[in-house]
Amino acid sequence: MEKALVLFAHGARAATWAAPFQRLRDLTAAQRPDCAVSLAFLELMTPSLPDEVGAQVALGARDITIVPVFLGQGGHLLRDLPLLLEQLRATHPQVTFRTVPAVGEDPGVLAAMAAYCAGADAA
Amino acid sequence: MEKALVLFAHGARAATWAAPFQRLRDLTAAQRPDCAVSLAFLELMTPSLPDEVGAQVALGARDITIVPVFLGQGGHLLRDLPLLLEQLRATHPQVTFRTVPAVGEDPGVLAAMAAYCAGADAA
Repeated sequence: MEKALVLFAHGARAATWAAPFQRLRDLTAAQRPDCAVSLAFLELMTPSLPDEVGAQVALGARDITIVPVFLGQGGHLLRDLPLLLEQLRATHPQVTFRTVPAVGEDPGVLAAMAAYCAGADAA
Repeated sequence: MEKALVLFAHGARAATWAAPFQRLRDLTAAQRPDCAVSLAFLELMTPSLPDEVGAQVALGARDITIVPVFLGQGGHLLRDLPLLLEQLRATHPQVTFRTVPAVGEDPGVLAAMAAYCAGADAA
């Protein structure tokens, strides 16, 4: 598809770690049948962001949005992601890339997390 | 206060990283005026979980719920948190401790994240 959303997560050693990210990808894909929606990881899990972007470009994506699925905006988003983006733009000059703040910065996500935290002692 | 909710996050080198967690603490506290609501970190930021729990116990907390503010359930929650909890229970035998799954496992949080991801290319 012309448009792709790549959900970009940290990755971890434990395979169990990826489960909520896979559910997130499926939930997002259900809302965006017009987009390719996929997952990529910074480290410890595959595919990497360059590999996943390469795969989407090979499938025809020309407008790719990278969504950082991180809670905080730390070194991975302040330093690693801008470098990765620069490399992606150099490798795929025919593609428009954009990115957005981390999911944890979104007021709707914060409100949902606060509701969960506020009810945790009754769980 | 008798009851405390301790939001337990990873921590990072970049000070900016903590901002959404502080907002989350404030949003949660606004919903739970009957509870002490505070933040603690696994590493790289203070207070640590043992220090924050010790402070809450000194202030009178006897029923403490630890809420992991993590997206995935990786090694930090599968191994580090159970060890920390065991030590907390040994150090504070007069206190009831409980914990819940990571915020990223909550269906409401996943739905809010999916809405954010699905709208990211229009941001």
